Amino acid sequence: MKDSNDKSKGKGITVKKAEDFNEWYSQLVQKAELADLRYNVKGFVCYLPWSTITIKKMYNIYETILEKKGHLPLVMPSVIPERNFQIEADHVEGFAPQVFWITKYGEKDIEEKLALRPTSETALYQMYSYWVRSYNDLPFKRYQSCQVWRAEATAATKPFFRAREFHWIEAHNVFRTLEDAEAQILEDMETTYEAIGERFAIPSIFFERPQWDKFPGAMKTFAADALMGSGKVLQLPSTHLIGTNFSEAFNVKFKDEDGQEKLGFITCYGPAISRIYGAMIALHGDDSGMIIPWELAPLQIVIVPIIFKGKENAVLSKVKDIKKQLKKYSIKIDDRTHISNGEKFAEWELKGVPLRIEIGPKDIEKKQVVLVNRLTKEKEFTSLDSLKEKIDEIAETYTNNLKKRNTVDFEKSIDDAETLENAKESISNGKIVRCGFCSLEKTAFPCAEIIEKEIGAEVRGSRVKGETKTFKKCIVCNKPATKTVYLAKSY
Amino acid sequence: MKDSNDKSKGKGITVKKAEDFNEWYSQLVQKAELADLRYNVKGFVCYLPWSTITIKKMYNIYETILEKKGHLPLVMPSVIPERNFQIEADHVEGFAPQVFWITKYGEKDIEEKLALRPTSETALYQMYSYWVRSYNDLPFKRYQSCQVWRAEATAATKPFFRAREFHWIEAHNVFRTLEDAEAQILEDMETTYEAIGERFAIPSIFFERPQWDKFPGAMKTFAADALMGSGKVLQLPSTHLIGTNFSEAFNVKFKDEDGQEKLGFITCYGPAISRIYGAMIALHGDDSGMIIPWELAPLQIVIVPIIFKGKENAVLSKVKDIKKQLKKYSIKIDDRTHISNGEKFAEWELKGVPLRIEIGPKDIEKKQVVLVNRLTKEKEFTSLDSLKEKIDEIAETYTNNLKKRNTVDFEKSIDDAETLENAKESISNGKIVRCGFCSLEKTAFPCAEIIEKEIGAEVRGSRVKGETKTFKKCIVCNKPATKTVYLAKSY
Repeated sequence: MKDSNDKSKGKGITVKKAEDFNEWYSQLVQKAELADLRYNVKGFVCYLPWSTITIKKMYNIYETILEKKGHLPLVMPSVIPERNFQIEADHVEGFAPQVFWITKYGEKDIEEKLALRPTSETALYQMYSYWVRSYNDLPFKRYQSCQVWRAEATAATKPFFRAREFHWIEAHNVFRTLEDAEAQILEDMETTYEAIGERFAIPSIFFERPQWDKFPGAMKTFAADALMGSGKVLQLPSTHLIGTNFSEAFNVKFKDEDGQEKLGFITCYGPAISRIYGAMIALHGDDSGMIIPWELAPLQIVIVPIIFKGKENAVLSKVKDIKKQLKKYSIKIDDRTHISNGEKFAEWELKGVPLRIEIGPKDIEKKQVVLVNRLTKEKEFTSLDSLKEKIDEIAETYTNNLKKRNTVDFEKSIDDAETLENAKESISNGKIVRCGFCSLEKTAFPCAEIIEKEIGAEVRGSRVKGETKTFKKCIVCNKPATKTVYLAKSY
Repeated sequence: MKDSNDKSKGKGITVKKAEDFNEWYSQLVQKAELADLRYNVKGFVCYLPWSTITIKKMYNIYETILEKKGHLPLVMPSVIPERNFQIEADHVEGFAPQVFWITKYGEKDIEEKLALRPTSETALYQMYSYWVRSYNDLPFKRYQSCQVWRAEATAATKPFFRAREFHWIEAHNVFRTLEDAEAQILEDMETTYEAIGERFAIPSIFFERPQWDKFPGAMKTFAADALMGSGKVLQLPSTHLIGTNFSEAFNVKFKDEDGQEKLGFITCYGPAISRIYGAMIALHGDDSGMIIPWELAPLQIVIVPIIFKGKENAVLSKVKDIKKQLKKYSIKIDDRTHISNGEKFAEWELKGVPLRIEIGPKDIEKKQVVLVNRLTKEKEFTSLDSLKEKIDEIAETYTNNLKKRNTVDFEKSIDDAETLENAKESISNGKIVRCGFCSLEKTAFPCAEIIEKEIGAEVRGSRVKGETKTFKKCIVCNKPATKTVYLAKSY
């Protein structure tokens, strides 16, 4: 067992991303030292420093955006008593099979079983019934950064994407009116585009999910889907218009201006940071390994001194100068002597360090360095005099260039289809299918089942913004199409 | 139940800290809205935004210091399989009664019981056996920020101080030699003084704990004790020289330069951030409420416009100017109209906002504002022209002044004692007692038991640094004193 991670250490990924995405992702996670799957509980993995540092940055970005928009942080217990968990019927039905239960402490049986939270509604909303009292308290916007536990059958097949313990943010809000709640849903979508789209460079589109695929207990669910390199989509943050179901169940009421007690309208938003991290490395990476947005990189610049015997001193003192000049960046000199320069280059490419600086005795003579850009793989000489400006420019444009690369891919991935046959062909070609659908109500579920069975894809729902295309007929039942929907395979 | 937190909202603390510390602390937690104790699982509390924001800042400070010293972050699963937990005998004995066990998921019994981690040694060290292989990997320094669960009997009596779920950092390190491990212990102490002493303004001293009071499985435990206003001490971070017990149990070995396989020397360090927060608010606060170090305050400056009818506009536009001028600080204008200025002052004093700015029409005429310093309670006029400089000065000196105030109190709290009678009197006067002791080995435990029984205090151990005093005899058994120890009541 001791050797299973070791044998490949320092070596590159041996498959092409486009040819075998699953194997590519597995090797990436292992060889770039992102997670260790050898922890001896099924579905639970260790996050290693290289992923943890970036995940912390992602949390920080997300929390800052949420706080700017008026959400305040809090920390809830991670255990939920059984009686709370059972209050809202749809919720119980949706989550019960996945809940881990604490039944003992020490040798004693516990008085009441405790659920490890699979999500926090049933912990939070009883407290909201204390905290929300008057219309003056509204809007009431809170979030917590925490982990949740779900005994999903598919866990552990793909670290970060799925696991029995994952790390997320959940924002839960109470509003005076349905309109206010709906406005929050739009705000959550913008937050998603800002964090995930702008800062993490992951293109996504929001779908209103069909009624058969909404959050247990909600009125409506809106979820962002990202397109992964493999043609599959991955569900990223979802925001739920909970409405008043839970307010009624947990007595979340406020005294309105007119003196009446009214039920609060609830929304919740749950960006799963660890999963977003998985999506990000899967989407951005290439055959050489990781690509990471500039501000998320654990290390932004690595300097590799090219050393020849007898000339070490001049080179090493120059790289120290350069490091000092660039100290506003996360920067490191790789002066290890027991591995070759080629091995160093491969290792930092694998780990996705955005910029490599190489400098040897000849470069010092010519007052220049070599810059290698991880995203474009371009190699260029830059004079030492203009190094700082050059690097500032790369730092500023790096993530944007990554975004541009991804955006093009995303729009290219959509195929319109009029028949199941066309749809099937497009899906098998790694595309997302756009088509007409009879409805998104539960009555249309049989059509969705046929798509799943015949095409192996899911109805992701209707696009929330920017839909331009309409269809005349439902691709399955040929009834008039009331919605334009998207079909895709998902993780 | 709905009203128990409500009735006192907006009202001040009704007891003096010096007269009834426990009641003072309870009221502080409730009235400043730091935690809500109404969560319906015994020993589990909700942290509200005002405490959460500061706790997040404390985490950030601590993590930054640890990373500067070469610790890398990681994230471990929060569940530990029973077989791991049982590997190290002393450890099992110490923690078994406190462990929460997961035995089911959904309706199914789980194959192997899972412990919710009470601490992470038995999760981490099996992974360390994979990760540490060569002397080149050493020192191996990692940390994680996480919560731990312990079913302590005394939980929930004092939020933040004790709870069944608490939030901490645990750093676990492997070294090549015992000397390297001992050097890490000293580094951990400096980290503690830097974070807790300098940044959080909590004076503490490190004691080497007696052998009967060390971490289960360690060679030696060193713990920082802070003196609380009540005369009691509170254990703050402890750092443990684990040695090779766990390395042996979990096979944490490395190939040394000489080709031999050797056991790694382990240390671990566990600052409990939520408890440190409790200690901090308990120590710093006064009869009006909280006092918070400048950089930890959720809000650093509050501006209260003093509004008279017809003159609102001039005042409100001036406060907006001021806010803009001071935007590098966390600053807020309190322009609520449904409560009085006096109520606003009391509320922000209770919540410990370091600086209040008051400005009314007369002040505008005189081109001045009123500044009220939360720590000193001093009120002074400052001209608008020099406002920015004045506030920069307050920001820079605030925490230092708090530290100075605390340091004096701390040194005053120590009484030397030659007899149990003197010791008893000093303890009952709210002092810490310094005295001679026969030894810190387990053989001296009977003497410690007598102290606990007769005086109601504990032997905290010997001071690690700066001890100047020696005693001739053990205060209990009159044998020659080999150690100078400290006796105190503790939380």
